[in-house]
Amino acid sequence: MRRTSKQIKIGNLKIGGNEPILVQSMTNTKTSDVSATVNQIKELEKAGCEIVRVAVLDKKSAEVLGEIKRRINIPLVADIHFDYRLALIALENGIDKLRINPGNIGSYERVKAIVEKTKEKEVPIRIGVNSGSVADKYMNRSKNLVKALVDSALDSIEILESLGFYDIVLSVKASSVPVTIEAYQLLAKQVDYPLHIGITEAGTILSGTVKSAVGLGVLLYEGVGDTIRVSLTANPVEEVKVGYKILNSLDLRKRGVDIISCPTCGRCEIDLIEMVNEIEKRLESCAYPLKIAVMGCVVNGPGEAKEADIGVAGGKKEGLIFAKGKTLRKVAQEDIVDVLMAEIENRKIEI
Amino acid sequence: MRRTSKQIKIGNLKIGGNEPILVQSMTNTKTSDVSATVNQIKELEKAGCEIVRVAVLDKKSAEVLGEIKRRINIPLVADIHFDYRLALIALENGIDKLRINPGNIGSYERVKAIVEKTKEKEVPIRIGVNSGSVADKYMNRSKNLVKALVDSALDSIEILESLGFYDIVLSVKASSVPVTIEAYQLLAKQVDYPLHIGITEAGTILSGTVKSAVGLGVLLYEGVGDTIRVSLTANPVEEVKVGYKILNSLDLRKRGVDIISCPTCGRCEIDLIEMVNEIEKRLESCAYPLKIAVMGCVVNGPGEAKEADIGVAGGKKEGLIFAKGKTLRKVAQEDIVDVLMAEIENRKIEI
Repeated sequence: MRRTSKQIKIGNLKIGGNEPILVQSMTNTKTSDVSATVNQIKELEKAGCEIVRVAVLDKKSAEVLGEIKRRINIPLVADIHFDYRLALIALENGIDKLRINPGNIGSYERVKAIVEKTKEKEVPIRIGVNSGSVADKYMNRSKNLVKALVDSALDSIEILESLGFYDIVLSVKASSVPVTIEAYQLLAKQVDYPLHIGITEAGTILSGTVKSAVGLGVLLYEGVGDTIRVSLTANPVEEVKVGYKILNSLDLRKRGVDIISCPTCGRCEIDLIEMVNEIEKRLESCAYPLKIAVMGCVVNGPGEAKEADIGVAGGKKEGLIFAKGKTLRKVAQEDIVDVLMAEIENRKIEI
Repeated sequence: MRRTSKQIKIGNLKIGGNEPILVQSMTNTKTSDVSATVNQIKELEKAGCEIVRVAVLDKKSAEVLGEIKRRINIPLVADIHFDYRLALIALENGIDKLRINPGNIGSYERVKAIVEKTKEKEVPIRIGVNSGSVADKYMNRSKNLVKALVDSALDSIEILESLGFYDIVLSVKASSVPVTIEAYQLLAKQVDYPLHIGITEAGTILSGTVKSAVGLGVLLYEGVGDTIRVSLTANPVEEVKVGYKILNSLDLRKRGVDIISCPTCGRCEIDLIEMVNEIEKRLESCAYPLKIAVMGCVVNGPGEAKEADIGVAGGKKEGLIFAKGKTLRKVAQEDIVDVLMAEIENRKIEI
């Protein structure tokens, strides 16, 4: 059961409530390099990214946000640390959401200046607390990172609410998976604002994918999370792909190809690993939720293949092709990939 | 809280109870090719594999198991489908565990022949139910895959218990993550045998890692699971690596390097992606649980780097090196990796 959260607007989308769980990412270009940033955002859009965040670290980056926004199709979030004036410029430039960590913005007056401008522009704020930068006072108070993250978020909420501001999204990311899970669980019980979930600084593509899949998996399975970001030290397009894979795995979204393929074992008499990688590569940009089973032998092959939209169960240097539960025909190993692709084309699926 | 399970012996190891959650894998060589199989098992051992399974699909594969066992150091599991006579030969050859899916072994008499030999050899049996091959009668009875998987496991347990056999490990793997989670949750409530968990036919390295990390992550977080296998359509060594990454992420095991690294953003002024990949590659075979933070900027960099054994926070084409919370010195971008490696060597960590 998904946690009930307040719904807020961001650009032409909504976050929380019964809305789909949205996939976010963040550019890693210099934001002030408009063309590089726009190009990357276009790539992210193509991969299915629904909300994009950019780092705003200087005046020039803040000033080009209007131009970036005009050239892209998804809501634009400005990520601001330390300097409240950058937030004001970003807001003047039409951003769709502001991400701040009130802990490093400085005085109440500065936060107030941001909040008033945000209210005027009808833009939501994400309070993004992060284990790497949680203020010392929270750690000193509780000596417990989970509590420090949540206390910091609650204090920031209190400031925003005291200013009559309620269009809030929250995040309490840690680089530790259990800390992140516990922090979100604790926060989820205390407030009804939508939650943006992620494991921060999760690492390289495979390691970061594991941490993100475990951490977000546990939270999403418990119904916690309204938007997600997979943080990877890699091309951000990979973050979006992995994000959908996580949501797909729990049947929370459906985008792209799902390949059921066996790990191969002594029973396998076709070159399955190469074949599956080839199929995955050819269907990489397919957004249609297609389920393909590519199985090496008769133990589980026909069973899985029958459940899939399209499937193949391997035999001796050949494969038995299935589509929607029906056996089509036997084909030689070297023709399997082409026959599967033709079958997909027959079904008029755009790749 | 980990689920309380009965403890059983496998070779010189134990499964269940308070034992560490063990990492398994399976060879994909022809089992009858002894040298290829032994070589692969040696590679798996080096990566930390603790139990290895081989497919036994013909008489020759069954007969060479004794020789394979003599040349390896970890418990050997024979995976048998359809032909109960292969199980008898495997048991005579000194295997440490037998994996069968009683549903495809045939008559009660055949199962009985296996169980009696297994008892004589004091070897445990894993009842491995799998979504791709669950018997029709269970699906017809409940029309629900979760229930069919569990019913099939319970029926098999009943057969084994009726023969006075209790050294049982169970698995109820499905290719669907939610089905797998629910099946194990349901089974975990009804029996106290140790559980071997995995998502079956999870797919290629990245997709399969996501499904396995989500599915096993949810189960392990709930305390369910005594041994794990990550099924990947890839070199099985990758299964072991990902297995440890999953267990590490939840602090259930500690093996190998944990890199905390940021996704990079417009703030990053060093070439972090390349640097982190290089560090990960150099430390690939390090089994010591070393925590390294490689962060692009000052927002979360110093905070994360201070928590790590060794860390670097990037500045403009340079990095500030930390070790165990102490700032060491600034080094130029091109020297960061070497300085980190020297620091690891100073700590006398074997890579």
